[in-house]
Amino acid sequence: MREVAVIGIGQTKIDEHWDQSLRDLAGEAVQAAMMDAQREVADALYIGNMMSSTANHQQHLGAYIADWVGFKQIEAYRIESACSSGAAAFRTGLMAVASGEIDCAVVVGVEKMTDSPGSEITAALATAADGDWEVDQGVSFVALNALIMKRYMHEYGWKHQDFAQFSINAHANARNNPFARFHDPLTLESYEKGGMIADPINVFDASPIGDGAAAVVLVSAESIQAAARPKITVAGSGSATDTIAAHDRRDPIWLNAAVRSVKNAYTQAGIGPAEIDLFEYHDAFTIMAALSLEACGFYERGQGPRAALDNEIGLNGRIPVATMGGLKARGHPVGATGMYQIAEVVQQLRGEAGANQVVDAKYGMAQNIGGSGSNIVTHILRRV
Amino acid sequence: MREVAVIGIGQTKIDEHWDQSLRDLAGEAVQAAMMDAQREVADALYIGNMMSSTANHQQHLGAYIADWVGFKQIEAYRIESACSSGAAAFRTGLMAVASGEIDCAVVVGVEKMTDSPGSEITAALATAADGDWEVDQGVSFVALNALIMKRYMHEYGWKHQDFAQFSINAHANARNNPFARFHDPLTLESYEKGGMIADPINVFDASPIGDGAAAVVLVSAESIQAAARPKITVAGSGSATDTIAAHDRRDPIWLNAAVRSVKNAYTQAGIGPAEIDLFEYHDAFTIMAALSLEACGFYERGQGPRAALDNEIGLNGRIPVATMGGLKARGHPVGATGMYQIAEVVQQLRGEAGANQVVDAKYGMAQNIGGSGSNIVTHILRRV
Repeated sequence: MREVAVIGIGQTKIDEHWDQSLRDLAGEAVQAAMMDAQREVADALYIGNMMSSTANHQQHLGAYIADWVGFKQIEAYRIESACSSGAAAFRTGLMAVASGEIDCAVVVGVEKMTDSPGSEITAALATAADGDWEVDQGVSFVALNALIMKRYMHEYGWKHQDFAQFSINAHANARNNPFARFHDPLTLESYEKGGMIADPINVFDASPIGDGAAAVVLVSAESIQAAARPKITVAGSGSATDTIAAHDRRDPIWLNAAVRSVKNAYTQAGIGPAEIDLFEYHDAFTIMAALSLEACGFYERGQGPRAALDNEIGLNGRIPVATMGGLKARGHPVGATGMYQIAEVVQQLRGEAGANQVVDAKYGMAQNIGGSGSNIVTHILRRV
Repeated sequence: MREVAVIGIGQTKIDEHWDQSLRDLAGEAVQAAMMDAQREVADALYIGNMMSSTANHQQHLGAYIADWVGFKQIEAYRIESACSSGAAAFRTGLMAVASGEIDCAVVVGVEKMTDSPGSEITAALATAADGDWEVDQGVSFVALNALIMKRYMHEYGWKHQDFAQFSINAHANARNNPFARFHDPLTLESYEKGGMIADPINVFDASPIGDGAAAVVLVSAESIQAAARPKITVAGSGSATDTIAAHDRRDPIWLNAAVRSVKNAYTQAGIGPAEIDLFEYHDAFTIMAALSLEACGFYERGQGPRAALDNEIGLNGRIPVATMGGLKARGHPVGATGMYQIAEVVQQLRGEAGANQVVDAKYGMAQNIGGSGSNIVTHILRRV
């Protein structure tokens, strides 16, 4: 594959944006990324989005957004892979540029969730699971994760509070991220008193939805002139599925698709977990934080919560995670999340992460999970 | 770009499939394509689908279908581009294989439309247009095309019956296609008596919805061993957008995006319209048949209906179109249509089109239109 570089990033704040439509948000992120890249035209626009058809009664986001941002007659379409739509769109852009068919691709993840009643959003999120064998039985998406967490705690003997530091760390990092939804710190006491959603997942184990968009600009690495700024390339990429229904897995508390996905990314990058300087993981729920750390080789099976307990996940820790707030505190506008993760890794590798900078970060990894672990996309970026 | 070949095709009949779900249909087409290709495993599955979120209350079709067909841990996601979702998915598969990242990709277009009330499908189809500036004014998708057709007839002086042969030809060709929804011939008398949908579009100007799936298997051309069967490669590919709202175009009766899209495809293939042996165009409405023939260089601006009037579109005509029935008579399961078109071109180039065979076809073109001309994807396939 032709090597691909990220030359621009743009993000909107994640919030309840009552005064901005889906295309306003996408447009803001795309234009910020184009400004950052110092480009005015692109050849293709790939859009990661999960639920515009139900939440916004609008599909065909390719033409819809390309038209809005003034990209004339370019290729444009939407990629949907539930909560991993953002990273799937990034992979589409990556392969398009790598193939030589597209010279300059813009990838944007966008989701506008707060216009609809919560019950509709819960129903839309459930379409990420198996309609016949999970959703029709009445299980919500949080409940599926709760079943996984409960089994995991039972199997390995962890208590609920052992997961607290995942969320506390995320909230601490979000304080310095102007794009994050939450800027309040979280204490252990608050975490333990959090309102229950689906036992054992309480409100502080779960990431908040929100409205937002994040975008990047991709070109071939060889096309970049010597620049003042560090050059950021895609060193590795992997994408894998598992059974869509959690109960169909031989071991529902092990992320098979993450193992396969990250293995491909490590192999392409020629590195292993020891070389990763920061990891933007998919902490939609604290249980997913633990499982991701295990599947990616940072902890032994069943030992993920050690990362939280021993506080090895801080900015100076063994493996910094959620460095800009993660899904938990930056927010989780589902189809946009994968692109926020990529943009944050680029911030870190460029040395533009401000107070949250991971010192001398060279390799950053982003992992985006769709469904209850059924579709996992991993990217490793590198400062050249 | 690495040259890419189509080594397998599979289709289901287009119909009201009350006894088959979306995944049944997709699975049937994928398995038929894999059998045809004599392969058992693939590395990626790209799915073209427009409306599963509303019509089937299921998203995340990547994991959903990969799991169903037994593809373990492969990359899989959905591409949505309204009615051009099928061809957009094909382009994604093409670039994935061309990049070298994926060795064997399966692309399937699938749509299951008849489970929902017609009013819901009409609402879902309308999400292909601009929600704020078209749909909120009360215009349906057929009405948008009717406005375009009316203006076109006014501008160039054509009568409604001048478009009849587009539909008559499609119905004639569908008779020999076992996968087509309709097998009844259409007469000029019936065409003229067709019930009005949105003046001047009557029921015989419009393609029928339906349930169906069509799939192909893609590999790099160089990886194919010498085979008994003709080798079919992708000679050219192009994809372009226009404004999403028809009224925003300087000339709403001219398909700008088709011009750009087909120009890229012709350039890559190193040929022009004179070398195209058959054209699977997007005859969702007879007006789109006329506009496509003009935009692709077969007729002068405003002269598209000449093709129908002079009957130059038959199997032995100057430019055979809708050779297996087209959208009009094969049927138009929206997100699947682009993949039916590709599969039919492959049938023709292989010499497997039976009674509808275009003699010695070497170059076949498929063009898939999303929205009212706002997203157009063109592929030229070649028998090597």
